[in-house]
Amino acid sequence: MVQDLLAGIDIGGTKLAVAIASTDGKVLGRTSFPTDPDRSPHESMNHALETLSGLAEKQQGKLRSVGIGCAGPLDFERGPVLSPPNMPLSWRQFPLRPFVENALDLPVAIENDANAAALGEHLYGAGRGYSDLVYLTISTGIGVGIIAGDRLVHRAGEGGHVTVQPGGALCGCGARGCMETLCSGTGIARRAQDELRRGRNSKMLEIVSGSDVKQVTAKTVEEAARAGDEVAMKVWRETTDLLAIGIGSIVALLSPQVVILGGGVTAGAGEFLLQPLRDALQERVHIISMQEVSVVQAGLGSDSVIHGALVLAARELQLDRTSR
Amino acid sequence: MVQDLLAGIDIGGTKLAVAIASTDGKVLGRTSFPTDPDRSPHESMNHALETLSGLAEKQQGKLRSVGIGCAGPLDFERGPVLSPPNMPLSWRQFPLRPFVENALDLPVAIENDANAAALGEHLYGAGRGYSDLVYLTISTGIGVGIIAGDRLVHRAGEGGHVTVQPGGALCGCGARGCMETLCSGTGIARRAQDELRRGRNSKMLEIVSGSDVKQVTAKTVEEAARAGDEVAMKVWRETTDLLAIGIGSIVALLSPQVVILGGGVTAGAGEFLLQPLRDALQERVHIISMQEVSVVQAGLGSDSVIHGALVLAARELQLDRTSR
Repeated sequence: MVQDLLAGIDIGGTKLAVAIASTDGKVLGRTSFPTDPDRSPHESMNHALETLSGLAEKQQGKLRSVGIGCAGPLDFERGPVLSPPNMPLSWRQFPLRPFVENALDLPVAIENDANAAALGEHLYGAGRGYSDLVYLTISTGIGVGIIAGDRLVHRAGEGGHVTVQPGGALCGCGARGCMETLCSGTGIARRAQDELRRGRNSKMLEIVSGSDVKQVTAKTVEEAARAGDEVAMKVWRETTDLLAIGIGSIVALLSPQVVILGGGVTAGAGEFLLQPLRDALQERVHIISMQEVSVVQAGLGSDSVIHGALVLAARELQLDRTSR
Repeated sequence: MVQDLLAGIDIGGTKLAVAIASTDGKVLGRTSFPTDPDRSPHESMNHALETLSGLAEKQQGKLRSVGIGCAGPLDFERGPVLSPPNMPLSWRQFPLRPFVENALDLPVAIENDANAAALGEHLYGAGRGYSDLVYLTISTGIGVGIIAGDRLVHRAGEGGHVTVQPGGALCGCGARGCMETLCSGTGIARRAQDELRRGRNSKMLEIVSGSDVKQVTAKTVEEAARAGDEVAMKVWRETTDLLAIGIGSIVALLSPQVVILGGGVTAGAGEFLLQPLRDALQERVHIISMQEVSVVQAGLGSDSVIHGALVLAARELQLDRTSR
């Protein structure tokens, strides 16, 4: 008998990952490749789908459904059609779902990457056993996915744009003082660069071996802060304080049992970010006892999204079986 | 044949309302009485339950389930047991659900008042036809109820404590700059009183006919602002600006189709509050197009909670029928 298989696709700003799994979620094959800006989305997706078919053939199985997590925001009403700010421009308005549906003649479910990661963490990662969780990815941008009452809050996804500094720095979205513009990897780097442009002496310049402040990244700030550099420590402390304002608002609103932090900045810094963040949350949030809210790192690391994509595929298969 | 009936109870800081309805939600009888601080919760609830039984008898029907909306916060884990900040102290830790379950031997569902109101508005009020809505009550305090994907987000409820002014005024909860402490009826009055204590001349003092600034309420501010009083207009403008920061964060996070405003302050001010609030939201929120998010007044006025309580009762009956 031919084995039924689930297909998962993670479309990010820098890489495209695919995986196949058995219908009970066991990953049977996977691979990833960089998102090539010179390739059209048609070419990239054709390559991804061929790879998936190849992986399925190796298992002598048949793909039954597809789940996709991709850099958002998605268009709820029409689509979803893709218009991702952190992706090559050619992906803008690319009709992702119809393309995959037509190519494979299979049911396809799509969520933005933060939502997919929340699903992945809920079923297989740090969110196992919790009914209500908030997943936050801190990388180039900040994305938020929400599970409430064991269900994904489908329309959620722009929680990076909660206000943490009214009247503060202008965000790419056009608003001021968004958590994303201040606390994402890009935001942390920008605030550090601003400090350095004021002529402040700092280990950060040594680390990037030169005087070009533009080379300073969130990683540079973390390294210098760990080494006790004053300017970097100030920027880092501001980061956890500002994150605590945004996450604190989200926690007050939703009262999750756990806040799960993923993304490159979190993965790199680990407890050096999490511990001061927990302290700042304890200090700032009172309506809900922060002692009853765990603040932890993602359990699946950079695989949260691809696992969430497989959860989406499984869900789609379930729907397919019951409704058709 | 004896008719099956639903019972709904709305327990507020100032009144206790009860209603009975047919299983398809048609209200058949209702009454309300003030919450008497000299009465124990046992006495008040016994009176409420007797009233409900009397209403049911009049319809020659039989109560099958009970829904309750009450001033929160509730205890998710143990209960819910009641510990309402805006209620007489004697209600603190009153075991509401077991009390009603034992007295009537019926299934009982409880939600805090903002959640119950969100349910009521979703099914019968301004939220009809929307899958995703945020309900905000602005009265003595500020409460937030959320419907996502046509389901109540059960654990939500302290959205009044999103931060709108980091480092701002101390809130009753112990945090600083919460939306509730600045923009609730109490908060609006306090900010106006602070302005007046600085010796500023204002129509507000005429309205309360005297110099005791403590007599100034949110209603006084609204009246004076409508009459063009400068100090009152400033306080009112600050109110809608601060509300726009908090509601803007919630909208960015959840991307609801509609924001429904209820509670005494909203009911009193109507468009005089809503229009500047819409303008401020347009100005502040960019990641989501505010032109696609309706900002409207509650459709059921002060009846949102009691209707939500009846929805809870109907749901409980459904569960009861399928699971027992």
